[in-house]
Amino acid sequence: MTQHERNVYLVDIPLDEARARLTEVLQAAGRWVLLPGETVSVTEALGRVTAAPVWAKLSSPHYHTAAMDGYAVWAADTVNATETRPLKLRVVPKPASGTGEKGDQGGVAGLAYAVNTGDPLPPDTNAVIMIEHVQQVGEEFVEIRAAVASWQHVRPLGEDMVATELVLPVNHRIRPVDLGALAGSGNSTVLVRRAPRVAIIPTGSELIPAGRTPQPGQIIEYNSLVLAAQVQEAGGATTVSDIVPDDVDQLRAAIQTALGQSPDLLLVLSGSSAGSRDHTASLVGELGELLVHGIAVRPGHPVIIGMIEGIPVIGVPGYPVSAALTGELFVEPLLAHWGGKPSALESRTRVQAVTTRKIQSPIGDDDFVRVTVAPVGERLLATPLNRGAGVITSLVRADGLAQIPRFSEGIDSGQAVDVILYRTLDEIQHTLLLMGSHDPMLDFLGQYLTEHSPGWRLVSGHVGSLGGLVALRRKEAHAAGIHLLNPQTGAYNIDDVRKYLPDEPLILMTFAHREQGLIVAPGNPLAIQSLDDLPRVRYINRQRGAGTRVLLDYELAKRNIAPTNVSGYDREEFTHLAVAAAVASGAADCGLGVRSAAIAMNLDFISVGWERYDLVLPTAYHDDPGVKALRELLTGDEFPQALGAHPGYDTRETGQIQYTQ
Amino acid sequence: MTQHERNVYLVDIPLDEARARLTEVLQAAGRWVLLPGETVSVTEALGRVTAAPVWAKLSSPHYHTAAMDGYAVWAADTVNATETRPLKLRVVPKPASGTGEKGDQGGVAGLAYAVNTGDPLPPDTNAVIMIEHVQQVGEEFVEIRAAVASWQHVRPLGEDMVATELVLPVNHRIRPVDLGALAGSGNSTVLVRRAPRVAIIPTGSELIPAGRTPQPGQIIEYNSLVLAAQVQEAGGATTVSDIVPDDVDQLRAAIQTALGQSPDLLLVLSGSSAGSRDHTASLVGELGELLVHGIAVRPGHPVIIGMIEGIPVIGVPGYPVSAALTGELFVEPLLAHWGGKPSALESRTRVQAVTTRKIQSPIGDDDFVRVTVAPVGERLLATPLNRGAGVITSLVRADGLAQIPRFSEGIDSGQAVDVILYRTLDEIQHTLLLMGSHDPMLDFLGQYLTEHSPGWRLVSGHVGSLGGLVALRRKEAHAAGIHLLNPQTGAYNIDDVRKYLPDEPLILMTFAHREQGLIVAPGNPLAIQSLDDLPRVRYINRQRGAGTRVLLDYELAKRNIAPTNVSGYDREEFTHLAVAAAVASGAADCGLGVRSAAIAMNLDFISVGWERYDLVLPTAYHDDPGVKALRELLTGDEFPQALGAHPGYDTRETGQIQYTQ
Repeated sequence: MTQHERNVYLVDIPLDEARARLTEVLQAAGRWVLLPGETVSVTEALGRVTAAPVWAKLSSPHYHTAAMDGYAVWAADTVNATETRPLKLRVVPKPASGTGEKGDQGGVAGLAYAVNTGDPLPPDTNAVIMIEHVQQVGEEFVEIRAAVASWQHVRPLGEDMVATELVLPVNHRIRPVDLGALAGSGNSTVLVRRAPRVAIIPTGSELIPAGRTPQPGQIIEYNSLVLAAQVQEAGGATTVSDIVPDDVDQLRAAIQTALGQSPDLLLVLSGSSAGSRDHTASLVGELGELLVHGIAVRPGHPVIIGMIEGIPVIGVPGYPVSAALTGELFVEPLLAHWGGKPSALESRTRVQAVTTRKIQSPIGDDDFVRVTVAPVGERLLATPLNRGAGVITSLVRADGLAQIPRFSEGIDSGQAVDVILYRTLDEIQHTLLLMGSHDPMLDFLGQYLTEHSPGWRLVSGHVGSLGGLVALRRKEAHAAGIHLLNPQTGAYNIDDVRKYLPDEPLILMTFAHREQGLIVAPGNPLAIQSLDDLPRVRYINRQRGAGTRVLLDYELAKRNIAPTNVSGYDREEFTHLAVAAAVASGAADCGLGVRSAAIAMNLDFISVGWERYDLVLPTAYHDDPGVKALRELLTGDEFPQALGAHPGYDTRETGQIQYTQ
Repeated sequence: MTQHERNVYLVDIPLDEARARLTEVLQAAGRWVLLPGETVSVTEALGRVTAAPVWAKLSSPHYHTAAMDGYAVWAADTVNATETRPLKLRVVPKPASGTGEKGDQGGVAGLAYAVNTGDPLPPDTNAVIMIEHVQQVGEEFVEIRAAVASWQHVRPLGEDMVATELVLPVNHRIRPVDLGALAGSGNSTVLVRRAPRVAIIPTGSELIPAGRTPQPGQIIEYNSLVLAAQVQEAGGATTVSDIVPDDVDQLRAAIQTALGQSPDLLLVLSGSSAGSRDHTASLVGELGELLVHGIAVRPGHPVIIGMIEGIPVIGVPGYPVSAALTGELFVEPLLAHWGGKPSALESRTRVQAVTTRKIQSPIGDDDFVRVTVAPVGERLLATPLNRGAGVITSLVRADGLAQIPRFSEGIDSGQAVDVILYRTLDEIQHTLLLMGSHDPMLDFLGQYLTEHSPGWRLVSGHVGSLGGLVALRRKEAHAAGIHLLNPQTGAYNIDDVRKYLPDEPLILMTFAHREQGLIVAPGNPLAIQSLDDLPRVRYINRQRGAGTRVLLDYELAKRNIAPTNVSGYDREEFTHLAVAAAVASGAADCGLGVRSAAIAMNLDFISVGWERYDLVLPTAYHDDPGVKALRELLTGDEFPQALGAHPGYDTRETGQIQYTQ
């Protein structure tokens, strides 16, 4: 297949234009309308959206109601009662259904009907006297010592709702209290929008369903899970077909089967490979009309939009981040429109945040960059996550999407960017930002923080030890995690803190001592004994600024080994686990890292020595409740004990202040 | 039953103390813990909460992956390629499973394996050249004109997730993208918190289930619907028993049956009457331990808390608002605790708003006052709704709860109050506040506004025409609806606007002409002909300041009828529908109101004349997009036409500006 053939339809059009084309063609097909209503019982109506205004069929209360336990009276009968001249009323023990006798009968001012709260007012009564305010006189009479006003302690008919009044407007999402108002106004059923039906076809010969162990070349298919869940959250019902291989006839048959069930929308999910095996666009053109193939949006480019037999079809790109964002940008807004609701993306909180790194963006694209968001000092900071379209964890970790509009080339670090938040602003405000060297146990610390200080969370950015110090200098983190060896003295951390943050009041508190060493394949097949062996094997390095890299350079210098003699010295990974993964895959023979990373990946470990990993905590944030909670964890007993139980961690100095300035 | 017997347990304790007692006894019973986990498939996990951290079982990708369609190569083979001296590579058409031949073979620099995006990198390759960057030379060879860097266009193993890495923390609510991360990391099942099981017993002899038509004295039971829905939204599973009458033995049996199913929590819902027929407290004492009977919280006082056989029991008061708030204050927070989540009430946005009316509050109570919230000018305004505990519509209409803490006697109008919002701040910001005279068609206008300007909503407060003008003067509304007759001139609205808002630039725009008249019983049994008949019948009046009351006074003066000669002149209702309801119930013989109210309640109507109902629109808010949208509706064609189709409304002047100042 030539380049020309592959790209025949792939002409990116702007996001707005793609949306407009879909809207137009749905309008033309009579499908740009709200979904019709269906009648459901109030017991099934929670979370549904009203398809018509709901009017009260009954008034509530539907009769004048006693609001207290006591006696129902005709108020005018009581006007002459005073403290000194009590009035006597004849007790009618049970509410009579007919009209009771009324009027003065031998020293009796009137009748007093015994009522409980909630009872209907007997005829010819218009007030209730509380039981506490009468004096029982035998079985038959009560005495009162004050007049009562008309309608005292009475809930009048219609106090809550008057029949014919509006109970709920159309397009209203039904909440628990609304169910009460519906039932109380005589509506035991309610007309709600029918759930949109969405058919989903995952395609791709390399895909296998979740639950099976993938072989090389096989990928677990989960875009259908993500898209189906998005549809479900939007109130839709889904049918997910089996995975269809990259075969034009099988895919055609699957599309025809799905369309036969008259869905409101069909989603065809590409495998993550896309490329030359993608038949979706040509099939949409063959079976119906291909409207869009390629949208100038990042991530997401190869989105397909078409119509077959009056049913809209969206071809969802295979890379997981692109797929999820296509769901947010196209699928959910369409379902929301059909349901008479604003789209989730529109409803999200938008904030301005300062980006901590330069974000480059292609000038022609609407670019959505996943970011973490945290408040440091007076500023709200957005830190871009891994931008790879295959990195679903970047969406899992994202606090929001920074939106870089078309015709912008990006945002410089330190500039403001618009962020659509995935979390509430309140959650964001309770975020501690720790930048610096990666340690697998920072997640463990984060768990402790969340458990002991509910609402608080720890976000850690892996930028290496020096990166952490730079972040503190730029006021872009609450804390930095560092393990920086001074090659002259062999001491840890203090000298670099002095050098990089000379004017910042701070403390240096130990997180733990960690065992560093060479991570090697199980059984150590190349018989690597020490760093002296590096010149003869393939090494995998950490990035510049990482403490582990400083340690390597220190040890290489001691041994008079030039970096150019280490194969792979220039190949960088950003975390201990990534180094271990490179060794596990056979891509490298060894790398320097912490013992826990070797254990996690079932690899062997050759100890090089222990290093001190400290947290740098600027005084400026010491009163921040999250920082306080973090310090309490480190200086307490429970967390150090739990951390020390992990091999490769020594917590005898955890929580100790090593240095103050 | 004497007063003493009725109140034996009813000693109000503060809210915090009640919560603390429940916590203590649950701790003692070993039930103040997170619910255990249960394993569910990822397809069932949406919205559930993780019961343990989830770690990656697989790396993702789990092999080095081609990120482009093209040729996989060993980067070092390509170093000598230049524009002028292309290098030739031998094509290996299909990815071989073993190691391919490698090295220089007669002018060939190395091998080039054809790969598609997503394919695993063949052994001994470490970069991908895009198909666009090679020149095909026959079937067997490709030529390249530039060197490639190692790992170019390769997604390395573990780029997304490295096996053993944390995928999701514990106590994390699972979202659609999380399902992708779970499945992609080899977790096809996940341990989530078991849903708490809540048994609900509605009690009350006066109650009937929704769907039946209530007779006098009967009340539709809907608190079980509201509480069950609250539990459902909190992730719980409910069992709702049939309504149990006020009979101690039947209630005992129902409680024992419910406890037999080992729920995590039992809710006994009182009928709305409570009072002498309430057996819940004594039964909790008899079967277990009664911990709390009565909490100093408004609304909600008679809450019961106890333990039976280690299972917590909450007795929920019968008044609907009290019941719903007990759900929010006690039930949901308990379920949230068991689920490891913050409670919904804690998670809601809190704002400070200025109250437009004095809120009186008992000094000993934590008081939760339902309010509407709207932004007018620079201020956020909170307007209290009907405070009756039986008025569920006040919760339906509430935008939030104003919280008046213990030891406060209330909040003066114009003072700031803390409000817990039920809506997002964004929804609140898109609120138009219309104060003034009630008209049933204002809801109709609100529907049009929401449909034509999605996101916008109209909140109307019924304070009478003069109340509306006062609200504008105090900058407490965007618009006022008025129908105020000048008794001297017979003209409408302009004179009162001049008198009450002399210095406010504004326009007066007509909403409609409305037909006012006497609302009488069907068939007009008392043969009421005109207002001249008022002295011989029972009248129901509107509140002071209402335009309809001004009209009545004008007409009575014309007829020389003294108000004291009108029986019921001092009995006030706040809306036309409430007047009609009073007539329908037989509580009054007639009242003055609009024709639509008579029609709504199937009553007869004796016309008194037509009046002009105008909207007062201060110039200060004319640029507000909501006000603009409202004016466009009134001056357009569609809304006036739809309004004019209702009997009793004449729209020939709708949208006309009657006056400008």
